[in-house]
Amino acid sequence: MKARVHVTLKNGVLDPQGAAVAHSLGALGFDGVNDVRQGKVIELDLAETDKAAAEASVKQMCEKLLANTVIENYSVEIL
Amino acid sequence: MKARVHVTLKNGVLDPQGAAVAHSLGALGFDGVNDVRQGKVIELDLAETDKAAAEASVKQMCEKLLANTVIENYSVEIL
Repeated sequence: MKARVHVTLKNGVLDPQGAAVAHSLGALGFDGVNDVRQGKVIELDLAETDKAAAEASVKQMCEKLLANTVIENYSVEIL
Repeated sequence: MKARVHVTLKNGVLDPQGAAVAHSLGALGFDGVNDVRQGKVIELDLAETDKAAAEASVKQMCEKLLANTVIENYSVEIL
């Protein structure tokens, strides 16, 4: 079973990577880019075959390792 | 208009970040993780209001800056 996790910085947390991308897009001539935020996407291939169990397990992974819940949000998607 | 871009390594390209995450998950006691791939997600807030024009513009951004098309795939989603 495959799972996809999105980890993004919470609103209000400074995002220097996103700011750098926004600046570079401007320098390349792309106007009209108001804001850029950069996050991570993690694709997991799990042996688990039960959807609910897989989702619970991936949420635990997020809490323990994949996301820093002080400054980051995460969302889990089972594919 | 908001757009979301996923940038992931192509199949066959070594992913040391993903391998490190897989190793750490194993060390934390999460069994049954066959494979982990890590990519980037970039969320753009655009001034453009036409959906087709926004998508074309974001694809150009991917080709020119956001993705290294030699080793990475990208997908664009207009929200």
